[in-house]
Amino acid sequence: MSNRITALEKAMNEHGLDSLLVTDPKHVYYLTGFASNPHERFLGLLLTRGEQPLLIVPALDAEAAQAASSVKNIITHADTDNPYDLLRQQFKNTIGTLGIEKEQISVARYEQLQQSVGAGQYEDIGPLLRAMRVSKTPEEIQRMKHAIDLIEEVLRQGLSRVKPGVTEIEIVAELEYLMKKLGADGPSFDTMVLTGPKTALPHGTPGQTKIQSGDLLMFDMGVYANGYASDITRTFAVGDISPELTKIYNTVLEANLQGIQAIKPGVTLASIDQAARQVTEDAGYGQYFMHRLGHGLGMDVHEYPSVHGGNTDLAQPGMVFTVEPGIYVPGLGGVRIEDDIVVTDNGVEVLTSYPKELTVIGG
Amino acid sequence: MSNRITALEKAMNEHGLDSLLVTDPKHVYYLTGFASNPHERFLGLLLTRGEQPLLIVPALDAEAAQAASSVKNIITHADTDNPYDLLRQQFKNTIGTLGIEKEQISVARYEQLQQSVGAGQYEDIGPLLRAMRVSKTPEEIQRMKHAIDLIEEVLRQGLSRVKPGVTEIEIVAELEYLMKKLGADGPSFDTMVLTGPKTALPHGTPGQTKIQSGDLLMFDMGVYANGYASDITRTFAVGDISPELTKIYNTVLEANLQGIQAIKPGVTLASIDQAARQVTEDAGYGQYFMHRLGHGLGMDVHEYPSVHGGNTDLAQPGMVFTVEPGIYVPGLGGVRIEDDIVVTDNGVEVLTSYPKELTVIGG
Repeated sequence: MSNRITALEKAMNEHGLDSLLVTDPKHVYYLTGFASNPHERFLGLLLTRGEQPLLIVPALDAEAAQAASSVKNIITHADTDNPYDLLRQQFKNTIGTLGIEKEQISVARYEQLQQSVGAGQYEDIGPLLRAMRVSKTPEEIQRMKHAIDLIEEVLRQGLSRVKPGVTEIEIVAELEYLMKKLGADGPSFDTMVLTGPKTALPHGTPGQTKIQSGDLLMFDMGVYANGYASDITRTFAVGDISPELTKIYNTVLEANLQGIQAIKPGVTLASIDQAARQVTEDAGYGQYFMHRLGHGLGMDVHEYPSVHGGNTDLAQPGMVFTVEPGIYVPGLGGVRIEDDIVVTDNGVEVLTSYPKELTVIGG
Repeated sequence: MSNRITALEKAMNEHGLDSLLVTDPKHVYYLTGFASNPHERFLGLLLTRGEQPLLIVPALDAEAAQAASSVKNIITHADTDNPYDLLRQQFKNTIGTLGIEKEQISVARYEQLQQSVGAGQYEDIGPLLRAMRVSKTPEEIQRMKHAIDLIEEVLRQGLSRVKPGVTEIEIVAELEYLMKKLGADGPSFDTMVLTGPKTALPHGTPGQTKIQSGDLLMFDMGVYANGYASDITRTFAVGDISPELTKIYNTVLEANLQGIQAIKPGVTLASIDQAARQVTEDAGYGQYFMHRLGHGLGMDVHEYPSVHGGNTDLAQPGMVFTVEPGIYVPGLGGVRIEDDIVVTDNGVEVLTSYPKELTVIGG
């Protein structure tokens, strides 16, 4: 962890920042090893040129922070304290430029910072942290593989309990129970189980719809484990499905494969999206693939980079993102097949390993 | 829902706002009936004087929004669109004052708004929405009672499966399974089950610690159901516990009761906190009650008001908040007892009903 702080301090100096305030709990964890959910309370890691790193935590997290954080210089604030007053007291000199996470910090907090710290200007340190995070270390890849292993085992065990008559929400309950039981910290996002025409809703909500023969059944889920997320989607056939649904399935599968095949260091993310999208367009379903191909994955289940047709950023080794083409025909149904991949020095490694061929389950 | 929009439009006019952009998904739900999790995508409800309300949603949520939203004037944006360009195109005239949720909107989005919409000034509409939300309607109280009934049933059923040797994390898995199975949308926050000396961590994380006779066992959990949250804490004795732990338990119980008794319309929230805190101070444990007495509860599990010693806001009918005193002695253990209450016209109604007397479970 402390290597990461050193690297960030170096970047801070290079970018002419006098001081830097990290308030995203994930980034505090990334940099110090202290994981917490402060809710609306103030949590901050303060780096100031020439000073020791300082961690500011809610009083009720003091013991946990002392135990877990590599930064041992910790001050605490009670619910009756104004944390911005405490913060101001840490600065011996006027702050010319203060680095903050502009995508994470709220306007209300920003205005409080302006009033209390009153730095000359505020620079976004999001790009610095993103640059550090985008290239996953082998140890981070190992953690992600573990999170993927867990969710694939959840899918395997969960699937064995699916039978006609069971509702979407009952399957969700079963899957999330398995996540915890198998040792995950919890779901990395709201577990999605959809069936029938509801599969045509890319962000649908599981409900009381029952599994029926002839329908599609879609699982989109992931877990957090040791601070890292997994995210996988598989779509199954319950009994025999119509020729059109089969065609849609195979189109999505081909799009998934073509997307993966297009991945190597140095190509634009847009070109990867396009390689997959072309398959859906050629099959006449282009209009029904109305979302990006994928998103970065790591400590957040959605993080940089966004893999869409307008992103000219280049794929680089260590980047982890999802490849998840989908076709959603309103009233009929939808298919999405999602893998997690890491860009390697020469190409790509697919981290997910759950089979992707059209599979018929207990119809 | 549309009554709420009308009320907000009225407040908008009274506060001299030309336009108002609601981006918190909870508030979009509160105002339109459309619930969604847009992740990092842009979601916004735009109210402009003299115009129809407009909902801007990610393309992949279009069908769901059409089905659920009372605002039928909807435009969508694809992942390749810049939603701020779309937003700018909605304004026929220059915007003098734009209302935004300053506690919710990030600095990065704020800067994008400044560049695209370029309003003369930006006012925080948080207080307007908070004023609407703080006073719960009878229908909202009914929903909250339902969320409370669910979590109390989860506790009842979950408790019957606790026995020495079971780990904290296994109990969490069981409880969250029950939540879903009983019909909740999911936990309203990370379910907390702590035992032994770990109960002294107000924000501890459930782990592999096993339930042992002689220990305390603390549950802090809640569910979301129909958009509203519940939140309850109960602490149990596993077999016989020491006289000091018993004394701590009874002190916290008395603090809980005194806190509740102090609640009626017109008193300061600080005075309610103090009524409970006095009990812990008189018993010599004041230093070990290092958090506020409670927090508002509603569509968010933590919302306005914060019930702490510095809050001179007044309790008012329809306000719902938690009363959750705790005593945490490092190395020994901790007790917290948390109820959800609503301020009534004459006093208080306690919404939670799970028994609070010290209860010994399967030792």
